Amino acid sequence: MNDCIFCKIEKNEIPSERVYEDDGYIAFLDINPISFGHTLVIPRGHHSNIDETPDGVLAGMIALAKKIGLAVVASLGADAYNIHINNGRASGQLVDHVHLHIIPRTLDDGLKAWRGRGSYPEGEMSATAGKIKTELDKNLPR
Amino acid sequence: MNDCIFCKIEKNEIPSERVYEDDGYIAFLDINPISFGHTLVIPRGHHSNIDETPDGVLAGMIALAKKIGLAVVASLGADAYNIHINNGRASGQLVDHVHLHIIPRTLDDGLKAWRGRGSYPEGEMSATAGKIKTELDKNLPR
Repeated sequence: MNDCIFCKIEKNEIPSERVYEDDGYIAFLDINPISFGHTLVIPRGHHSNIDETPDGVLAGMIALAKKIGLAVVASLGADAYNIHINNGRASGQLVDHVHLHIIPRTLDDGLKAWRGRGSYPEGEMSATAGKIKTELDKNLPR
Repeated sequence: MNDCIFCKIEKNEIPSERVYEDDGYIAFLDINPISFGHTLVIPRGHHSNIDETPDGVLAGMIALAKKIGLAVVASLGADAYNIHINNGRASGQLVDHVHLHIIPRTLDDGLKAWRGRGSYPEGEMSATAGKIKTELDKNLPR
């Protein structure tokens, strides 16, 4: 896609620190990392977000993330990693080319995703599950 | 696995608000949600983490997350969602049964993952990429 910064990175029109590439995917370092070694995995083809990405392409992304996560941990002395996919502007997705974040973590890094977690008021959890189930039932034949 | 809380949820030995199930996977609400509608997707079989989960099982998790994410957004009036997988204790993984988080988001929810992002000192980005590439080259024949 003409204006897509990740398509330009894929075509080497914009430089990146690439850690991996094959026929379907490339992986490169995020220029504004949450932690050093923060890596992005993208498919070469342009798909704006998860909803527009074929299941087979998503399957390749997650399989590759597993391999790269292992290498990131081993090579940088990390203890673990997070995988994130932001889907839609309100989730923090800044580039409309589907991408997966691999964020290296150490036990003492002091990072914390989110500010905390809550709990449901009485009855609200079951009501919420009911709404999701009803919507899923419209689209997923059992 | 005997002591695994998610295996007990899968077997209905512990109650949960289930939003979806099929032969391979179940999805249910997180009891301490980051936002209401926060849903977990797990395979029925016990795999401790991503590293121990076959690629085909991961592929099914992400394909299902795509369907459930769409339903969560539509049914709860959300604008977007995040997908997270925490891999290893240092990443925040609390239950050693591989699971994927779907976190509904709205434009005005005030949530923010992480406290901020940094940048690499001169030369450090390229050096970091080099370390990861070297490690990947050991395991991924080109």
